[in-house]
Amino acid sequence: MIFCDIGNTSCHFLDGEKSYKQDVKTFEPSSFKDQIYYVCVNALMKEKLKILSNWVDVSSFVDMRKYYPTMGIDRICAVEAVKNAVIVDAGSAITVDIVENGAFEGGFIYPGLQAMSKTYSNISPALAYSFNFECDLDIMPRNSQDAISYGYLKTLYLEVTSHKLPIILTGGDAEDFKKIFKDAKVDDKLIFSGMKKIIQKANIC
Amino acid sequence: MIFCDIGNTSCHFLDGEKSYKQDVKTFEPSSFKDQIYYVCVNALMKEKLKILSNWVDVSSFVDMRKYYPTMGIDRICAVEAVKNAVIVDAGSAITVDIVENGAFEGGFIYPGLQAMSKTYSNISPALAYSFNFECDLDIMPRNSQDAISYGYLKTLYLEVTSHKLPIILTGGDAEDFKKIFKDAKVDDKLIFSGMKKIIQKANIC
Repeated sequence: MIFCDIGNTSCHFLDGEKSYKQDVKTFEPSSFKDQIYYVCVNALMKEKLKILSNWVDVSSFVDMRKYYPTMGIDRICAVEAVKNAVIVDAGSAITVDIVENGAFEGGFIYPGLQAMSKTYSNISPALAYSFNFECDLDIMPRNSQDAISYGYLKTLYLEVTSHKLPIILTGGDAEDFKKIFKDAKVDDKLIFSGMKKIIQKANIC
Repeated sequence: MIFCDIGNTSCHFLDGEKSYKQDVKTFEPSSFKDQIYYVCVNALMKEKLKILSNWVDVSSFVDMRKYYPTMGIDRICAVEAVKNAVIVDAGSAITVDIVENGAFEGGFIYPGLQAMSKTYSNISPALAYSFNFECDLDIMPRNSQDAISYGYLKTLYLEVTSHKLPIILTGGDAEDFKKIFKDAKVDDKLIFSGMKKIIQKANIC
């Protein structure tokens, strides 16, 4: 079975054990002939996929009553994959979702690494630093690079750790955030695990 | 005495008890003939002001050894104004500075309201909501507007309140943030208080 998670920046495929990414700009779904189980948060791509019968939308098998209508399907899949966790999906946006005893308890959205970096440099060229993931978050900063790094990272860290649940990191920037969430588990196939569970529950395979 | 705090967006004047703002884009310092004590974080404006003898740069009277070289002079003035506080200056950027027993203990920089709003809408049109300052930060969100509001506000709230110090709000968006930091004191003349203290210490007036 082939799975595909289509985001705003890239398409992430899982074919057996092999996983690979493709830039969403160069992605042409009609060029694929195999049956592919997909989720998609990209509005433009959704329209293209609708008319292709070999692309199977996994979102149609989800019990949506557990979630809210505008919640991204990628977040829903990640939630479906776990029992007890804070899921931190670090992509274009960082979504943080709480799952307790298999139930979705709500979640929030924080800007992703690239987006937030641009934000600071747009405010002032004096803030155009890359984030320092080695910055000591136990000490109040005394230089500009750490001042923005702490602003972006410590604030997120405090909220995520406040839930006292195991932390699972996924998404393209998971390895960077692992430097901050040292006890977190990185699982770059979390969304695929959720997709598999959803179609198993729906008795499709 | 006339004071002026020049930021990246606006120039804030204090003339006696009267305070007013002017857009930095339409601000022409050579049109002023009075002596004006100023601080400025705007690089372009700094160059213009240097050559005008009636504009007195308050930063030249600060003992900079207590601070770090790239720290904004507006933050330094706010710090000079207080003894024990977390100062939250909510402007284009939100600067958060810790002062204990009159000593600067470090600080961080977080994106301002407008900048962060743009950040979310640039990530995806699905996130183009205004922030909901009435959002209950004790409950994990279950709708998109609260998901971004909580992401922006709760993270900041947790860090700021973790210091267990009185909170002072200043800057153009102070009143909005007062809805989150309910026990905070709003002081829109904090930077001017610091400027006055600095020039008093320097025996200029």
